[in-house]
Amino acid sequence: MSSWIQELQAHLGDCVHTSPEVLAAHSGDKWHASALPEAVVLATETEQVAKAVQFATAHGIPVTARGAGVGYVGGCVPVKGGIVVSVARMNRILEVNPADGVAVVEAGVLTAQLQEACLEKGWFYPPDPASRKESSIGGNIATNAGGPRCLKYGVTRAYVLGLEVVLPDGRILNCGGRTHKNKQGFDLVSLFCGSEGMLGIITKAILRIIPAPQKRAALHASFPEFAMAAAAVQNILQAGHLPAAMEITDAYTLAAARNHLGPSILPANAKGHIIVEIDGRTHAVDTELPEIAHILQLTGATEVVTANTESDVEAIWQLRREFSYRLKATGLTKLNEDIVIPRSALVDLVEFCASMQKETGIPVACFGHSGDGNIHTNVMVLKDELGNDIRPPADALVNRLFDWVIAHGGSITGEHGIGLAKAPWFAQAVGDVAIDVHKAIKAALDSHALLNPGKMGI
Amino acid sequence: MSSWIQELQAHLGDCVHTSPEVLAAHSGDKWHASALPEAVVLATETEQVAKAVQFATAHGIPVTARGAGVGYVGGCVPVKGGIVVSVARMNRILEVNPADGVAVVEAGVLTAQLQEACLEKGWFYPPDPASRKESSIGGNIATNAGGPRCLKYGVTRAYVLGLEVVLPDGRILNCGGRTHKNKQGFDLVSLFCGSEGMLGIITKAILRIIPAPQKRAALHASFPEFAMAAAAVQNILQAGHLPAAMEITDAYTLAAARNHLGPSILPANAKGHIIVEIDGRTHAVDTELPEIAHILQLTGATEVVTANTESDVEAIWQLRREFSYRLKATGLTKLNEDIVIPRSALVDLVEFCASMQKETGIPVACFGHSGDGNIHTNVMVLKDELGNDIRPPADALVNRLFDWVIAHGGSITGEHGIGLAKAPWFAQAVGDVAIDVHKAIKAALDSHALLNPGKMGI
Repeated sequence: MSSWIQELQAHLGDCVHTSPEVLAAHSGDKWHASALPEAVVLATETEQVAKAVQFATAHGIPVTARGAGVGYVGGCVPVKGGIVVSVARMNRILEVNPADGVAVVEAGVLTAQLQEACLEKGWFYPPDPASRKESSIGGNIATNAGGPRCLKYGVTRAYVLGLEVVLPDGRILNCGGRTHKNKQGFDLVSLFCGSEGMLGIITKAILRIIPAPQKRAALHASFPEFAMAAAAVQNILQAGHLPAAMEITDAYTLAAARNHLGPSILPANAKGHIIVEIDGRTHAVDTELPEIAHILQLTGATEVVTANTESDVEAIWQLRREFSYRLKATGLTKLNEDIVIPRSALVDLVEFCASMQKETGIPVACFGHSGDGNIHTNVMVLKDELGNDIRPPADALVNRLFDWVIAHGGSITGEHGIGLAKAPWFAQAVGDVAIDVHKAIKAALDSHALLNPGKMGI
Repeated sequence: MSSWIQELQAHLGDCVHTSPEVLAAHSGDKWHASALPEAVVLATETEQVAKAVQFATAHGIPVTARGAGVGYVGGCVPVKGGIVVSVARMNRILEVNPADGVAVVEAGVLTAQLQEACLEKGWFYPPDPASRKESSIGGNIATNAGGPRCLKYGVTRAYVLGLEVVLPDGRILNCGGRTHKNKQGFDLVSLFCGSEGMLGIITKAILRIIPAPQKRAALHASFPEFAMAAAAVQNILQAGHLPAAMEITDAYTLAAARNHLGPSILPANAKGHIIVEIDGRTHAVDTELPEIAHILQLTGATEVVTANTESDVEAIWQLRREFSYRLKATGLTKLNEDIVIPRSALVDLVEFCASMQKETGIPVACFGHSGDGNIHTNVMVLKDELGNDIRPPADALVNRLFDWVIAHGGSITGEHGIGLAKAPWFAQAVGDVAIDVHKAIKAALDSHALLNPGKMGI
């Protein structure tokens, strides 16, 4: 045991943990990498986070923050050991205040819990990462989390009004506030949104909430060609609709799901599929639903199914989840890349993936948030006779995918962040000047490079 | 003439101007302060901006960027002389692309021109600062401009996907891009949004555009008490409506406008007034309009006027503009403070202003964007017998107003920024830790403090 640990325990008391079980439980996220910290601070209040960081700074010990630990890019892996500071136990909803249009929460609150607390009062916190039942607000903010509903509602950053952040020197910064507009100096709130724990540890947030839409409805439709599904996305927007979500699915994923779902739900010839969710005032939704159904039919849908009740809408979203489950059920390891492309490049992306699949024999399954071009592109790792993953060709394919995305004006990550997983491509994606700006900002706020070290490759 | 000017002219050619007229025209904005630069670069392309900044850095000469120069806080006043770089002539709309949901513009494009170019294609760029016909996109981004419509649509930052920025060392940074989601590293786009020309010079922007709403409609209503108008704001939101805009006006402003507008528009007993604009699908707007009218009646409105056609809606907004004109027509100097308070503090703010007015005899007129608590609070400067402004008591009143706003969790600026005008209160508003973070970021990107020096007091 390092000599400083007893001192840390004397400094902070019972919230410092060193048992092998606790260390192991705080060694990684949903990505494959992991590393053991030497101590874990399970903070229940901001002051403990500040003291832990002050101690670490004084002793030159790395500190890695984590919330619920369900990220996809190894963003909270303590690669240099040291202290993990978890805010998972800072999980109180301090206020849901419709009169001010704000919710005030500690960083460890699960996103779905906040959403439920808002809905009880008829209010709405829109960001909806797929992980919302297990991911925390602090992690959502640190990664600027997205989700299907971003097309209409925007990403997490659009709902963060104020933050309490423990800086790398252990001081507590309050930035932004509980007003819906704030032009006081630089936009520090946005700088910490998406900073992946490298500039400070988010301990509390003041979030913007809005009146809940009266109603939602949904449609799903299959198409004999993927390009027709992509055209439907454009036609819906061009007709003046702004759906909450538009999810698209490619032929490979549909094929994986068809046996399980049956031809009554997915026609045998379906090579493209979209789900559209709309929400708003009841009268608007009721008239918009048939309008969008009509657009889908005109665009060549084989069949259009509309859902006008909550349970029917949920059934359509269950279909979306099935697509994901069926890929898992292939038994193959999925390399899930959350790339983003300009919306008009949707067909080109899927055709490129199909051509790589044809050339290499490695399946590539595309589905995701078509409205904002954020397509989860899953490279399925083949296995050898012994059942072991054959990684090199899959990794090479991911390389080619990222090259293509960058060359086509896309982003190598729309939701998950850079962390460890995307660090090898980060400089290629953003360019040398942007890397220098990242390094300058990192050095300005964390001169000893102790906060979440080893991430983003900077 | 400084010795370096000829060298700059040799370096950059015809875009360098030194005539007294050009220098004077680039000495300030709509605030009262001004200072003459020694040279003005009227750039028509990014490379000229970069060369000017490189030259300035090499020679230690201050550089102040400006767009249309219509700010309210002296943000583009070249207080230390040197070079003004204007991007006003970089005014090309490079692309309006519905398929990707983006517009690409040079920084000098006027906001209203972009909006018209989008509307021609049935698309919509929502940010609507009151200055939109004369302010440029670059300035809107540098100040993160707001407007009435932010309640539903958010501020400028919510529509900026990518930026081209000339850094203080003269290098050209491209950050963000033309995708609607992007989690590649820190959110540099947001850091430059609202940075008031102190971290870089914005030369180009990739903006998010959305399908234009089919229809808009509006209502206006007078109330016998201001508190009832404020209650109407809460009741509309609590009933689940999210209007595009909700503008509130206080008794003093109404009194100034009444003689001009006549009692048929503004009842003699009106002490509060609201304008509500809604937009969306035609069916939604048509059913929502009477619902909101009913809420206004239940909340005690003297009379409710609805507008269901474009020309009637414009007539209601003309009313809003009249309020502003009538304050000007008093002949008194207005100190227009764009403070923001938590929405529930609206009545408290107006009562506080009324009590200050009663105590000092100095009129205080409040009107503005009630939905997000952004109230333009106009302190009317009284005149002495010779017709000269009596500033000290008015300035003292502004001091008390800001003290009150900060003590009530508000922001001293929601739209205009800090610049020179708000610099004296900046540290009090954001606190010492935030000031240190501002200084660290400024020093990291502009180590010689040459870019827009003297602003924000840092």
